Amino acid sequence: MEEKSPVWNNSVMTDRQLLEEYKAKKPWLERKTIVFLSDFGTVDGAVSAMHGVADQVDRTIKLEDLTHEIPQFNIWEASYRLIQAMTYWAKGTIFVCVCDPGVGSERKSVAVLTKTGHIVVTPDNGTLTHVAREIGILERREISEAVNRLKNSQRSYTFHGRDVYAYTGARLASGTITFDEVGLELGKDPVMLEVEEARLENGAILGAIDILDTRYGSLWTNIPDTLLDNVGARHGDVFHVEITHQSMVVYGYDLVYAKSFNDVARDDALIYINSLLNVGIALNQGSFAERYRIGTGEGWKIKLVKKNQN
Amino acid sequence: MEEKSPVWNNSVMTDRQLLEEYKAKKPWLERKTIVFLSDFGTVDGAVSAMHGVADQVDRTIKLEDLTHEIPQFNIWEASYRLIQAMTYWAKGTIFVCVCDPGVGSERKSVAVLTKTGHIVVTPDNGTLTHVAREIGILERREISEAVNRLKNSQRSYTFHGRDVYAYTGARLASGTITFDEVGLELGKDPVMLEVEEARLENGAILGAIDILDTRYGSLWTNIPDTLLDNVGARHGDVFHVEITHQSMVVYGYDLVYAKSFNDVARDDALIYINSLLNVGIALNQGSFAERYRIGTGEGWKIKLVKKNQN
Amino acid sequence: MEEKSPVWNNSVMTDRQLLEEYKAKKPWLERKTIVFLSDFGTVDGAVSAMHGVADQVDRTIKLEDLTHEIPQFNIWEASYRLIQAMTYWAKGTIFVCVCDPGVGSERKSVAVLTKTGHIVVTPDNGTLTHVAREIGILERREISEAVNRLKNSQRSYTFHGRDVYAYTGARLASGTITFDEVGLELGKDPVMLEVEEARLENGAILGAIDILDTRYGSLWTNIPDTLLDNVGARHGDVFHVEITHQSMVVYGYDLVYAKSFNDVARDDALIYINSLLNVGIALNQGSFAERYRIGTGEGWKIKLVKKNQN
Repeated sequence: MEEKSPVWNNSVMTDRQLLEEYKAKKPWLERKTIVFLSDFGTVDGAVSAMHGVADQVDRTIKLEDLTHEIPQFNIWEASYRLIQAMTYWAKGTIFVCVCDPGVGSERKSVAVLTKTGHIVVTPDNGTLTHVAREIGILERREISEAVNRLKNSQRSYTFHGRDVYAYTGARLASGTITFDEVGLELGKDPVMLEVEEARLENGAILGAIDILDTRYGSLWTNIPDTLLDNVGARHGDVFHVEITHQSMVVYGYDLVYAKSFNDVARDDALIYINSLLNVGIALNQGSFAERYRIGTGEGWKIKLVKKNQN
Repeated sequence: MEEKSPVWNNSVMTDRQLLEEYKAKKPWLERKTIVFLSDFGTVDGAVSAMHGVADQVDRTIKLEDLTHEIPQFNIWEASYRLIQAMTYWAKGTIFVCVCDPGVGSERKSVAVLTKTGHIVVTPDNGTLTHVAREIGILERREISEAVNRLKNSQRSYTFHGRDVYAYTGARLASGTITFDEVGLELGKDPVMLEVEEARLENGAILGAIDILDTRYGSLWTNIPDTLLDNVGARHGDVFHVEITHQSMVVYGYDLVYAKSFNDVARDDALIYINSLLNVGIALNQGSFAERYRIGTGEGWKIKLVKKNQN
Repeated sequence: MEEKSPVWNNSVMTDRQLLEEYKAKKPWLERKTIVFLSDFGTVDGAVSAMHGVADQVDRTIKLEDLTHEIPQFNIWEASYRLIQAMTYWAKGTIFVCVCDPGVGSERKSVAVLTKTGHIVVTPDNGTLTHVAREIGILERREISEAVNRLKNSQRSYTFHGRDVYAYTGARLASGTITFDEVGLELGKDPVMLEVEEARLENGAILGAIDILDTRYGSLWTNIPDTLLDNVGARHGDVFHVEITHQSMVVYGYDLVYAKSFNDVARDDALIYINSLLNVGIALNQGSFAERYRIGTGEGWKIKLVKKNQN
């Protein structure tokens, strides 16, 4: 997957060497940037309170937002959105990712250092699934609330985003604590959600429908463009596309693999490569998901078979 | 209330001494940060125009947003959201709060300096209700539009957020004017909305339902956790909860006082302490307000009576 | 139109002299600010990926957003929102404006330098209509993707906002490239949408209904306040207002020209001057557009005739 991102680490160092280098060079002090991600929405002051807490730790931290419109308690989508934007941010950028249906329960609060040199501060409930699979985690530490919790916040049990995660992210970004001072080291592997693998089987490309591009109604699969390459696909080729939900076929048509939406007529469907370099299915200027009532996530699968072109 | 916020001023100085200290030390010059709050939404360029005006005054001002999704003309909610996030921002942070159904009318434009060392620039129409009650105001000044109004904006009567409030906030943040140079000093007391007090009566806890946590459908009351302490409440205790609207009972059940949402089954209701350290009523992973059709604001009251535990 | 904006350039220099001055002084290096505008929404990580790409080019660039809620593929509204906020930002501010139904098609990617010293980086598909008409463009260059495209992004054909526009904007803001190094110079005139002119005819004021102020339901016309001055209008005067859609009358009443919304009773309609100094039609605390089912854009016209006041 190294070639998939412009910021991927192409080093030949071992994970151990990489970890030591990051800990020595601390790229997060150079960036001093926190990117927030949550399911809080922006209607109340919750996101601003997180920014405020980070700003109090150090005024010079750059405060950015990925999105706060994750559907509530949808850990899968939080994990997906995190990987979607993360690698476009420089090495050393810190992500505070809070989608936390289990706040107050026994799930752990952690910070992880990735192979790309990013840090993620988050409840360890599956939000790290895509980061662990597609980038890789070098070290995972449990946040010690004895030291890394906003002063005087102990009576509030429900806003760890502000009192623990934003605060810990800011203490890392400002150099108040080192990565080791986050808390005790845990094993590298975070809590994982189940993921359906994209693969080739008997010439057919199989995969899952990961997510809806809500704004445009396009479906994003987990099938990398390299699998299209493997079957020799070129723009203009036609594929039979079959979508199933819990093994029942809900869509089956022939679609063209287009270079851009404008290669097909308005309202026609197409196969394309999305901005993450995965296979997408769309209508030109319409919502594919809505017209054909296609959903996303667990149980939604897709099969592509290249047609003979004589 | 001193203990309620991590940034509360715990000084033993009198208000007069505090005011003099703030005017001498000008903590807003050190922070150089404006947090914007409005009912403008983010669909058009209005918020960006306010940011632009502040940026023109001084490029190094940090521009932040609390929310711009206040329901239009809902002064109560603007006042509530302001206090919700304000104290998580450092002393000296300036808030520009614009919810202004009376733009162009005789309501005054003011800047106030709070006991916590924050400045709020706002139309004086009730948006300062919670700040005045829960934090306290040291000084209130009327903005002199003769000096503190964007050049060449006199023909526009309807966008004071941009032409007066953002501009005045930026002039304060940049040190272009002192707090006294905002304009003439008024009495300390701003225009206030009516507030129902939380209190104990014959062993029952009485209060109002302040606001809806829209994202999760939870109700936030104005009852501080200390009133629960006063009746000796512990996690696991059961309370009879009665909600009335204009004196008619619309809800009456026994609920457990839980430490976290996960202490009850999915879809069960609970009493909890929210992130502002007030009593909240919620469903675990559902909307309490929607299921029981509960509203917020004037006329919505709540009573909690602790049950005997034998 | 010079007097319409507080930041308008009032110089007596010729366009050529102005262009040379901007190229010599490079005001964008002093501001180092990018304002993003798109139809991406904020639900996924697309906007954050654009910010991240710009941040990677130079961490000290100030990243701001105008709006990302442009209705999808609505180039008219993108053009309108751009001009609405642009001139409130300092000379040298760079705008990255992405509303791009034709991504991947033959539309050109351009950067333009305006008479006000702003830079806009955008697909050249009509988004520059209002900027060209109301401010004026000094120079237009086609972005050379050979040099000004994010490294390793060549396989993604659908996210030029991130891979080309954000990246090019950041390279300009950071001084990595000069304006000339954007790419080849094109003629000054960008692709334009059709615009209905505001004008006086036989004492009647004619114009178009440009846009809906979504938050308040007010209609914004393209009629400047100076046309009201031309017919001697004063606050309190009454006008007959006629709104037509494709030449059919859909509204016809007498309305007062008010100084502020509060000059009429709650729910009454009024004529006012909006924050862009154009004529607006509104209800005091209600939605005019919704009550009378008025739309905006092509085909929607308005006529105002001043009534005799004896």
